Amino acid sequence: MPPKKKARSAGAAVPKSYQAIARQRVVIENMRPALEGGYPIKRVPGETVTVQADAYADGHDVVRCALRVKRPGARKWEELEMHSPQEDVWEASFQVDKTGDYLYSVCGWVDLLASWHHGLERKVAAGQDVRVELQDGAEAFRQAAEHQRGKLKKRLLALAELLEDPERVAEAVHVALGEGTKALMAECPHAVDRTESARLPLRGERRKAGFSSWYEFFPRSASGSTERHGTFDDARKKVLPLIARMGFDVIYLPPIHPLGVQFRKGPNNSTASKPGDPGSPWAIGSPEGGHTAIHPELGTLKDFKAFVQAAGKMDIEVSIDLAFQCSPDHPWVSEHPEWFKWRADGTVQYAENPPKKYQDVLPLHFESEDWQGLWQALLEVTLYWIEQGVTIFRVDNPHTKPFVFWEWMLGEVHKRHPEVLFLSEAFTRPRIMARLAKIGFHHSYTYFTWKNTKQDFEDYLNELVHGELREYMRPNFWPNTPDILAWHLQYAQAPMFYIRHFLAATLSSNYGIYAPAFDLMVSDPVTGKEEYYYSEKYELKDWDFEAMTPFRERIAHINRLRKDQPALQDTFNISFNETDSDLLLSYTKIDANGKDIVLCVVNLNPEHTVSGWVRLPYWRLLPLLGIGEGHPLVMQDLITNHEYTWSSEWNYVELNPHELPYHLFRVIPA
Amino acid sequence: MPPKKKARSAGAAVPKSYQAIARQRVVIENMRPALEGGYPIKRVPGETVTVQADAYADGHDVVRCALRVKRPGARKWEELEMHSPQEDVWEASFQVDKTGDYLYSVCGWVDLLASWHHGLERKVAAGQDVRVELQDGAEAFRQAAEHQRGKLKKRLLALAELLEDPERVAEAVHVALGEGTKALMAECPHAVDRTESARLPLRGERRKAGFSSWYEFFPRSASGSTERHGTFDDARKKVLPLIARMGFDVIYLPPIHPLGVQFRKGPNNSTASKPGDPGSPWAIGSPEGGHTAIHPELGTLKDFKAFVQAAGKMDIEVSIDLAFQCSPDHPWVSEHPEWFKWRADGTVQYAENPPKKYQDVLPLHFESEDWQGLWQALLEVTLYWIEQGVTIFRVDNPHTKPFVFWEWMLGEVHKRHPEVLFLSEAFTRPRIMARLAKIGFHHSYTYFTWKNTKQDFEDYLNELVHGELREYMRPNFWPNTPDILAWHLQYAQAPMFYIRHFLAATLSSNYGIYAPAFDLMVSDPVTGKEEYYYSEKYELKDWDFEAMTPFRERIAHINRLRKDQPALQDTFNISFNETDSDLLLSYTKIDANGKDIVLCVVNLNPEHTVSGWVRLPYWRLLPLLGIGEGHPLVMQDLITNHEYTWSSEWNYVELNPHELPYHLFRVIPA
Repeated sequence: MPPKKKARSAGAAVPKSYQAIARQRVVIENMRPALEGGYPIKRVPGETVTVQADAYADGHDVVRCALRVKRPGARKWEELEMHSPQEDVWEASFQVDKTGDYLYSVCGWVDLLASWHHGLERKVAAGQDVRVELQDGAEAFRQAAEHQRGKLKKRLLALAELLEDPERVAEAVHVALGEGTKALMAECPHAVDRTESARLPLRGERRKAGFSSWYEFFPRSASGSTERHGTFDDARKKVLPLIARMGFDVIYLPPIHPLGVQFRKGPNNSTASKPGDPGSPWAIGSPEGGHTAIHPELGTLKDFKAFVQAAGKMDIEVSIDLAFQCSPDHPWVSEHPEWFKWRADGTVQYAENPPKKYQDVLPLHFESEDWQGLWQALLEVTLYWIEQGVTIFRVDNPHTKPFVFWEWMLGEVHKRHPEVLFLSEAFTRPRIMARLAKIGFHHSYTYFTWKNTKQDFEDYLNELVHGELREYMRPNFWPNTPDILAWHLQYAQAPMFYIRHFLAATLSSNYGIYAPAFDLMVSDPVTGKEEYYYSEKYELKDWDFEAMTPFRERIAHINRLRKDQPALQDTFNISFNETDSDLLLSYTKIDANGKDIVLCVVNLNPEHTVSGWVRLPYWRLLPLLGIGEGHPLVMQDLITNHEYTWSSEWNYVELNPHELPYHLFRVIPA
Repeated sequence: MPPKKKARSAGAAVPKSYQAIARQRVVIENMRPALEGGYPIKRVPGETVTVQADAYADGHDVVRCALRVKRPGARKWEELEMHSPQEDVWEASFQVDKTGDYLYSVCGWVDLLASWHHGLERKVAAGQDVRVELQDGAEAFRQAAEHQRGKLKKRLLALAELLEDPERVAEAVHVALGEGTKALMAECPHAVDRTESARLPLRGERRKAGFSSWYEFFPRSASGSTERHGTFDDARKKVLPLIARMGFDVIYLPPIHPLGVQFRKGPNNSTASKPGDPGSPWAIGSPEGGHTAIHPELGTLKDFKAFVQAAGKMDIEVSIDLAFQCSPDHPWVSEHPEWFKWRADGTVQYAENPPKKYQDVLPLHFESEDWQGLWQALLEVTLYWIEQGVTIFRVDNPHTKPFVFWEWMLGEVHKRHPEVLFLSEAFTRPRIMARLAKIGFHHSYTYFTWKNTKQDFEDYLNELVHGELREYMRPNFWPNTPDILAWHLQYAQAPMFYIRHFLAATLSSNYGIYAPAFDLMVSDPVTGKEEYYYSEKYELKDWDFEAMTPFRERIAHINRLRKDQPALQDTFNISFNETDSDLLLSYTKIDANGKDIVLCVVNLNPEHTVSGWVRLPYWRLLPLLGIGEGHPLVMQDLITNHEYTWSSEWNYVELNPHELPYHLFRVIPA
C-alpha cells in the first residue's frame, strides 16, 4: 500500500513564479494568427478565424487542446475542442458574429482519463492482464466525479463501481472500451493544470469594412458648367441619383474646405493661376476657415448635411477627406505657428519632393514642441465631422504623418465611434502600407492601380490573401484616382475600361473609382506622366452625370451582382485557375458557406479576341456541389445570361473584348 | 519670422503613455533572430550574430539604425551602424568574444542632418537656389553642436558659420556636399527620439558547446574479462590512453550508481536474470544508495575522482548520465513514496510503452504533491556531481519529464556553474527536441542516426542550419548508441563504419560514438529490431581497448583534422555541392574568417566504387581565395595527402569504399 505522503521541506527553494505552472505539462507556442505588438486581427461578421498553435507535453500522455473565445460583451469564454491536423499542431475555427472586441486563446492539458483509456486499449490488444488497470481507472473516474454533479456525477460513479468489481472484469473491459465511455470522458475532461496561451485580440468591424463600392467625385464639378462652381445641392440633385442607380454605396468627396489663395495652382498644376481658378482642394484653409469649415462656394454646413442625409436615404454613406495639411492662408498658420516648421528666411517649409515643389501646401510639424495640441486639434477635426454625419474618412497621405499619431487618433475615434471607418491613401512601400493597416486603418489603397498582367494579378493577390497581411489589411482596389492615370489607361478605349472595372470589382470586395473620369472613360495624360491632362484637381469640369451609358449600365449590373453573390463580398476567398494563355486570367471565389461559387475569366488584351482553355478546380467544387466526378456543371454567365455546360476539367473559352472581355459565371450542377 | 511658440493646453488629453514615444518616428519590427518566449539565442566565442529588423519612418526623411550590444559584465552598450541590404530592412553583425549573458537590440531614428543633406544634394542637382537651405543647415549644425564638445563641437560650429555666410554660398555648397561633411555628420548623429526594439538575450556558451568529440563506454566492461566487473581504475589505466590517442575530448559514462535487484534484466533484455547478471545501468538505486552513490563494484568516489582527474590531465572531460528514474530498490521509494505514482494494487507504476514493460525502472512522479521536494532533490543530485568534478551531463530521456522542470533546473545550474553543459537524449518528435534545446540544453541528439541517403542528409542539415533552430539547438551526431543499432549498420562491413564516422565527424562539429562497439565494428542486431544482440546494457563485455586498428587510426586522424581545421569546428557553416550521382554527397565548410576552406566528398555506397562529378562553389570561393575565374585550385586531400588540381566548375571524383569512401579536401589556390 502507498505510504502516507509527507512533504519534503528542507532546502526546497523553487521560486514562487513556478508555483502556478509547475504542473502545467503542455507547452503552447507559435500561435497563429498573432500579430507582433499585440495589434488585433480583423474580421467582419460572418467571417471565420482559423486558429492554430503548436502544443505538446512531455511523456506519452494524451494531450487535448481547446480554442477559447470571448465575444464582445460576453461574461464567459466559449471553449471549442481543437483537432490535430498534423503532429503536435492543433486547430479550430470560430465565426465572428457581431462587431466589437474579441479575445481568443489556446488552452492545452494532459487528459489523464484519456491517457488511462489509451493504455487500457493497448494492453487489451496485447492480451495483457488489465485487472490493476481497471482498479486504477475506477480511482481516476472517482476523482473526475468530484468535479461534476447531477447525472454526470452518477454516471462516473457507476462506471467506477463497475471497473472496481473483481467479479465483472470482462464486462468492465467491454464497457470501458465502448463508445459510451468515450462519450462520458469527452463530457468531463480532467482539465486541471491547463496551460493557456496569451489572450490575443480580434476586432470585429462592421460589414462595410469588408464589402463596399466607392464613387469619388468633385462636387464643385456638379454644376453642369465650367463657369459655375458646383454645390452640394447640385451634387444632391444631379449626382446622387446616378450614383444610386449605378449601385455604389460609399461616396468619397475630396476636401470640402475653403482653399488657399497664396501660391494657388492653375490648370495642369501650373504655378501661375489666374483669378477664377478654383485651386487644388488639398490646399486647405483660407481666412474663411480651415479643416472644420466648408468652402462657401460649395454651400453651407446645412447643405452638406442635407447631402449626407439624402445619400443616407439611398443607403449610401458619405466619406470626406482627412488631408492634414494647410494652405499658407489656413488660420492655424497664424493661430498656431508652433505647428509648422519655420525656415531661416521666416517662411514655413512647404511640401516638396525635390525637384518638385508644392508651395500651396504646408505640412504640419509633428515634431513640434506642442505635438499634443496638434494631435488634439486633428482629433477634434475628425470628431467634428463625425458629428455632422460622416461615418467614413479617406485619409490623404497618412504615411507622411507619424504612425504613433494615427494609432492614438484612430484609437480615440474607435473608443467613441467604433462604426467609423478610415481608408488609408498610402501609395508607398509595402511595410509602411501594412503598418498603417495594422495600427487601425480599415481599408488600404493598393498597387492594383498599376498591376496589369496575369502574373502581376496572381502574385499580388496571393500576397494579399495568403500571408499574414490578410489578418489586418483590407485592400480597396482603385483603377484610377485624381492623381493617377496609369500607363495602361492612357489613351485607352472602352475594352480597357471594362477590364479594369471588372478586375477591381471582382478581385476585391472593396473597390472604388475616381469618377466620372472613369465611367466617362477619360484617358488623356500629361505627356510622359501618369497624370490626367487638365486634371480636375485644378479646374472645374462640366461632366455628364445623367446619361446612363452602356459602360455605366455595365458598372451598375456588376455592382448588383456583387450584392447578389456572397462570393463576391469577400476578398480573401480567391483562388486562381490555370489557363493556357498569359492573356486569360481566371479565378474562383466561394462564399463562407460553400454555397455560392463564382468563376471569372478575363481577357486581359483589350484589343483582340483571345481564346484558350481554363482548368476548373474540380477537386474543390465536386464535394461542395455534392456531385461525383464526370457530372457536368452548368456555367451561368450572370452578365449575358448565357449558359454553358462544362463536363471536363479543361474548358474552352473565347472572349472578344469589343463585345465583352469577361465571363462572370455562377457554377451549379447540371 | 517665426512667432514665439505657445503651447496649446485646452482639451489636450493625450495619455501619458504617449509622452515618451510621441516623437519616435521610426517603427522597428520583425527583429530576427528573436525567440518566442524570451529565450536566449546561443553562441560560442568566435561565432557571429547577424541581426536584421524591419525599420522605417513616416515621410521622406533619412532613417538610420544601430545595432546595440551589451556584452557580459560591460557597463555600456556598444553601437554598430546598420546597413540596409533591402528596402526597409536593416542589418548588422557582431561577434561573440566570451561566455556570458549578452543583450542586443536595434535602435532607429530619423537623421535630421542627413535628411537636410539629402535634400540639399537633390536641389543642387536640380539647379535650384539653395541659399535658404544653407541657412537651415547652419541652424541644424548649431543644434547638433549643442550635444557635442571639444574638437567635434568646433568643427560643427565652423561649418555652421560657413553655411550662414551669404558671401560664401558657392564654397558652402562645395563643402557641404564634400566627404568631410559626410564624415562629420556620421560622427554626431542627431539621435534624439530614438525608437529601440525589445532587448533580446544571447547566451555566450563555452567553446565545447560548439565543438566536441564524445566517446561513450561502460567502465564495467573495462576489466578485460567478462568474469570480472570493470572498475574506474581499469578504465583509467586501459581505456583513457586509447581515448586520448583517438583524440576524443569528452567521455560519457552510462549511470555509475548502485543498481536494483528486483526485476533486474538478464542478457538480451530478458526478464529472467541469473545471479551474477549485472543489470541495466539505468535501473538506478539499491540499498547501497541512489543517484549520489557509486556502484561499489566500479570503485569508490575517490576512484571516480581519480579517473576524472586523469582524464582532465589529457584535456578530456567526463560526462555522467542524469537518468532521473529509480529501480524498485532505490532508497527514495521508501524515503519519498510521495515521489512515485502508486497503483491500486499497492505497487509503484513502472515504465511502460505497451506492450513493452520496463519493470526494473520506476518513473518519478512529477505531478506529485511534493513536486518541489522532488525538483530540489534532483537539482541536489546534479550539484553533487558537479562538486565531484563533472562538467558535462548526458541527460537520459529528458522528454519524459516536464519542460518546466528542466527550465528551472538548468537555470539553477547555470546561475551557479555556467560552464556546465547538458546533452539532451531526446529521440522524439521535432518540436519536443527543439523545445528542450530552447529551454537550456546545450547539445541535442538528432535524427542523424537514421539518415542514410543524400537527400536525407541535405534536407536534414538544411533544416538544422538554415532555420530558426540554428539559433538555439546544437546538434550532436551519433552513428550509434547502446540503444540503437540502425538498420544500415546491421551486419555492416568496415566501409559503412568508415562512412558513418566520417559523416558524423564532418557534418557536425559535435559528434560521438558509443564505443568500442562502434570502433570495433560490432554489427549483430536482435533480429528485426534496431538493437544490439547481447547488448552491453545487460552484461559485461571483454572489449579490446588496446589495439590501434586501422579504423581507430582513421578516427584518430579525423579527430586531429577536426582540431586543425577551424572549418570543421562549426556545424552551421555547411553548404552542399551539386553532384551528378545520388551516391555522392559533397559539402563545403568555411570558417568564420573565410580562411579555412574544407570540401568533403563521400561515397554513400559502402559496397561499390562510385565515380561522378562534383560542382565546386566557385562563386563563393574565388573572392575568399583572392583569385579570378579560371585560376586553378589545389585540392589537398588531408587524409591521403594526395593533391588534385581542379580548374573548372565540375570535377571528376572516384571513390572506392574498400580503399577509402571519402575525400576531405583543403582548398587552396594553385
